[in-house]
Amino acid sequence: MIGLLLVDHGSRREAANATLAEMAARLRQRRPDLLVAHAHMELAQPDIAAGFTALVVAGADDIRVVPYFLAPGRHASEDIPALVTAAAVAHPQVTWRIGECLGPHDLLAELALLRSGV
Amino acid sequence: MIGLLLVDHGSRREAANATLAEMAARLRQRRPDLLVAHAHMELAQPDIAAGFTALVVAGADDIRVVPYFLAPGRHASEDIPALVTAAAVAHPQVTWRIGECLGPHDLLAELALLRSGV
Repeated sequence: MIGLLLVDHGSRREAANATLAEMAARLRQRRPDLLVAHAHMELAQPDIAAGFTALVVAGADDIRVVPYFLAPGRHASEDIPALVTAAAVAHPQVTWRIGECLGPHDLLAELALLRSGV
Repeated sequence: MIGLLLVDHGSRREAANATLAEMAARLRQRRPDLLVAHAHMELAQPDIAAGFTALVVAGADDIRVVPYFLAPGRHASEDIPALVTAAAVAHPQVTWRIGECLGPHDLLAELALLRSGV
């Protein structure tokens, strides 16, 4: 079963962390055929190891990690791959891969225009 | 004339900063009726004052700032409004407002699924 792990930076603000949990819920609603979990790279729980393990416990054997970042900075390109690699060591039966971060993409241009109100 | 200022965090990685410039170019293409500029909150140029001024110089008298952030953390909620307020002092003839940050939104759920490849 495919598991999708949505990973953001993590914040000291609960409101910021809550938006990732909300996005995970929206993904579950859209794709009830997938297992979906979220994790924060740092500063908040669940961390990447906890999110990865939660998917495995729920039955995932193929995990797709999506860095929930707008640009390919150091976090999406280096830190998150390193943390996922470390988390996966405990689950050698599970295949996994890391997708590209969200941006740039035309859907983000559409969303920015919506938010600008013009 | 309406000016749209897309503001991200700013990075020490040129590739990350370049994605914001690319997003500004995509917005110009979609909406040639708008003036569009981009700015980085910190770490890179153009900064918010430079981006704001560039729009005014180009003829904008009504500026919409879009925090190019996924969640309403401290940067989108406090730091960017403070920097925009300071930048606007030099241009009292210009009206401006700050929109909401990008997330959470269903378009981001759609994009995350696209990036996951599932």
